[in-house]
Amino acid sequence: MPSEFSITRTVEFAETDMAGIMHFANFFRWMEAGETALYRSLGLPLISFVPGQVVGWPRVNVSCSYRAPLRFNDTVEVKLFVKKLGTRSVVYLFQFRKAGVLCAEGEVTAVCVTAGEKGVMVSAPIPAEVRAKLQVAPPAAWAS
Amino acid sequence: MPSEFSITRTVEFAETDMAGIMHFANFFRWMEAGETALYRSLGLPLISFVPGQVVGWPRVNVSCSYRAPLRFNDTVEVKLFVKKLGTRSVVYLFQFRKAGVLCAEGEVTAVCVTAGEKGVMVSAPIPAEVRAKLQVAPPAAWAS
Amino acid sequence: MPSEFSITRTVEFAETDMAGIMHFANFFRWMEAGETALYRSLGLPLISFVPGQVVGWPRVNVSCSYRAPLRFNDTVEVKLFVKKLGTRSVVYLFQFRKAGVLCAEGEVTAVCVTAGEKGVMVSAPIPAEVRAKLQVAPPAAWAS
Amino acid sequence: MPSEFSITRTVEFAETDMAGIMHFANFFRWMEAGETALYRSLGLPLISFVPGQVVGWPRVNVSCSYRAPLRFNDTVEVKLFVKKLGTRSVVYLFQFRKAGVLCAEGEVTAVCVTAGEKGVMVSAPIPAEVRAKLQVAPPAAWAS
Repeated sequence: MPSEFSITRTVEFAETDMAGIMHFANFFRWMEAGETALYRSLGLPLISFVPGQVVGWPRVNVSCSYRAPLRFNDTVEVKLFVKKLGTRSVVYLFQFRKAGVLCAEGEVTAVCVTAGEKGVMVSAPIPAEVRAKLQVAPPAAWAS
Repeated sequence: MPSEFSITRTVEFAETDMAGIMHFANFFRWMEAGETALYRSLGLPLISFVPGQVVGWPRVNVSCSYRAPLRFNDTVEVKLFVKKLGTRSVVYLFQFRKAGVLCAEGEVTAVCVTAGEKGVMVSAPIPAEVRAKLQVAPPAAWAS
Repeated sequence: MPSEFSITRTVEFAETDMAGIMHFANFFRWMEAGETALYRSLGLPLISFVPGQVVGWPRVNVSCSYRAPLRFNDTVEVKLFVKKLGTRSVVYLFQFRKAGVLCAEGEVTAVCVTAGEKGVMVSAPIPAEVRAKLQVAPPAAWAS
Repeated sequence: MPSEFSITRTVEFAETDMAGIMHFANFFRWMEAGETALYRSLGLPLISFVPGQVVGWPRVNVSCSYRAPLRFNDTVEVKLFVKKLGTRSVVYLFQFRKAGVLCAEGEVTAVCVTAGEKGVMVSAPIPAEVRAKLQVAPPAAWAS
């Protein structure tokens, strides 16, 4: 029952902008990559198109604060913490560290949804098999 | 029956890279935006999920040659020419001009497909209503 | 002295993801496009590499909340409000509306920086010419 | 003196589009990631801002042909071959394989440039230290 997970990534040329640093919007792609890797490690699908079953985890709130820039070829640890585990939603906290130094911190609230009638997404309780594999991290874990 | 079409775009900050110019891969997004705008102008869907009908135009070959860089806030004309119109495919030629100067030239070959059994894409003849609205541009039109 | 500004955009194919909607990270690119268009309309550079002068507005905090998805070819108004105007920073609020309906709301805090010694960015007072052209929007303006 | 190099990547959610497959423009980002990893492995900079020295490798021609789609979470080998090594340019060939099956093939021609007077990029002979570390792959290597 993991409460945290981490991936390591290298900043790509296409992820930089003319200011010479990773474009701020790309941090959100990296958060999602961390979440995807967590689910893959748990043997759970992040999105599923099987009719009648959970289909996805759309984001309802996201944020990021930036402390130091990331540059081309920087190797970065993206650490994910399960901050809250609700009935129908999960809040993830993400920390981006370069050589141990915290460069950015983000948060994503994802809601569990299923496709209701006519394909409209409606929120749904987090399936038991998913809930059984996630655990809230203690606040001390992400104190930076 | 248009054989050419153009859109005007401005280079965005997020489209630049640390070399201070528009990243080369983004030219392909702009080509697709031109193709989309052409279809929209013709009242045709570029992609359709209606069962049993044409579903899309996946790309089978694309290319681009670069002559001069595009920079942040540059205003650029992207001109599309229908270069070839086959039974099941279309070849588009694209020219990127800044203040009239040709900065890049691209080509996209898109194949008309429908969803066959089990959702597998199979090539299909271009629908008559689409063919009726497209016309091959004379080579002189795109001579640069 | 504008306190609000808006642009209209259409969701592009490359901006969608396999869930069939605009990927959540792209909303931040659109916010930046709105900010860029505001600056362009004011005759101000969003970023400048002239030595000794203001060089840019890096983001320190950004957030977005999502209420309804945007889909391919949707026409969307992105409205920017100047929410706060500090000595060295600006807070922008963004509202995304489709046919008048609020689909997402975002916020960006940008800090004015200059390149200090050795190219390191340091925060700086907002230049008078910029300050003279911006005005805080009354809260009633962005009440949604 | 490597003549080929490979990286392994997994398709991310943000790299897919509403057709449920990796967007065609993203293959070019992956090619560049392969090139970057090759240079990193050789201890060479892909881009350098040291005054008077080689500054980069802008692309002059790129192309890609697509045989089979890549989908979310697919693990893909991107193999790079040095196809041609000119005085001032390099041609790379890229093959994308999923479970051994060739899904796409791309080509990138990059020109070695230095910043001339007033920052204008001018082509330059490939530095000896770079040339010493690259070798053309025999055609049999990339026969697919």
